Amino acid sequence: MSLIQDLQWRHAVKAYDPSKKVSQEDLNTILEAARLAPTSSGLQPFRIIVVENQELKEKMVAGALNPEVMRDSSHVLVFAAWDSYSNEKIDKVYDHHTDVRELPQGRFGSYTDMLKQMYGNQTSAEHFAHTSRQTYIALGFALAQAAELKIDSTPAEGFSNEVVDEILGLKELGLKSVSLLYLGYRDEEKDWLSTMKKVRVPMEEFIIEK
Amino acid sequence: MSLIQDLQWRHAVKAYDPSKKVSQEDLNTILEAARLAPTSSGLQPFRIIVVENQELKEKMVAGALNPEVMRDSSHVLVFAAWDSYSNEKIDKVYDHHTDVRELPQGRFGSYTDMLKQMYGNQTSAEHFAHTSRQTYIALGFALAQAAELKIDSTPAEGFSNEVVDEILGLKELGLKSVSLLYLGYRDEEKDWLSTMKKVRVPMEEFIIEK
Repeated sequence: MSLIQDLQWRHAVKAYDPSKKVSQEDLNTILEAARLAPTSSGLQPFRIIVVENQELKEKMVAGALNPEVMRDSSHVLVFAAWDSYSNEKIDKVYDHHTDVRELPQGRFGSYTDMLKQMYGNQTSAEHFAHTSRQTYIALGFALAQAAELKIDSTPAEGFSNEVVDEILGLKELGLKSVSLLYLGYRDEEKDWLSTMKKVRVPMEEFIIEK
Repeated sequence: MSLIQDLQWRHAVKAYDPSKKVSQEDLNTILEAARLAPTSSGLQPFRIIVVENQELKEKMVAGALNPEVMRDSSHVLVFAAWDSYSNEKIDKVYDHHTDVRELPQGRFGSYTDMLKQMYGNQTSAEHFAHTSRQTYIALGFALAQAAELKIDSTPAEGFSNEVVDEILGLKELGLKSVSLLYLGYRDEEKDWLSTMKKVRVPMEEFIIEK
């Protein structure tokens, strides 16, 4: 199947079969797709928290728009962005770049100086507005990868960030939750959306040719 | 090739061969992938402006971090988000949903009432923070689709939003530019990044298992 066919196949599943689990191998492939996503300046300013534990899921249900989806999914991926940029974080990423590429230390010095100056002039709210956007590219890659593997998924912003951050201890890690990706296998009978046509804005309205 | 292999193959190309153009068929496939991306409540609160005209590209160069990439790319896709939500926009989307799915008008009335109330209590700045995030899922799908077709691409936030919005007349359309996706074919000799190893944060740091 082509990617387009995979993307046509997928939809935001509304009910999961709790008896079916995503295999570790497939989960790893989905996480790898997310890890390969490009980010601004290559900083990858976010992490993914993988939640399989049922007790934790039950705690995260408070404030969730679709509690049953949370409960019955196989895994919940929590996309959590850096609460801020810092010189230390930037240096760590670029030290790693020079190591892997066997380049002299400081090879990217003028570039990282520019980044440090730019982010140094911004508030942490501006930082988070930027880091949180980056997570959605990886969310896109993870959605596409799940579809290729014929694993069902549901991207979700309808949950309590406060509850999730607290339960997962994200503040202490310098992270804030942005979105969730539920993974699993649909319950064919309960997933009312699976029988409905996919609807998108017509192409002639979606694009503007110049 | 699998999606993971495609995602490993791609990188943010730093120099394009201006003599090579992306075919209309391939361009359409990339746009279709973006159109299929999920968005919050299915509102698809953004549009893609397709710029192929060289004069327009030259005008958009002002303030761009990589002017040569802008000039030499085959096409520039401008991801531009709604500057705000409104009751009219929400109704238009859901009227289309009921039409396509042959459901009675008003089938989603309680849901759209909830959306209208929620967005009615937010500022347009909050709206745009939300609509702009949604564009990145589609950016991810477009990047993945380009990679499957072995078309080079460069996602970019390094440009002047003011310049691009002005040149493309986006304000009058209720849109604001968010990111660019350059498409084309790399210039092997000038694209210094193509010979370097892809670097990502190690998986054991990228994920947190709970």
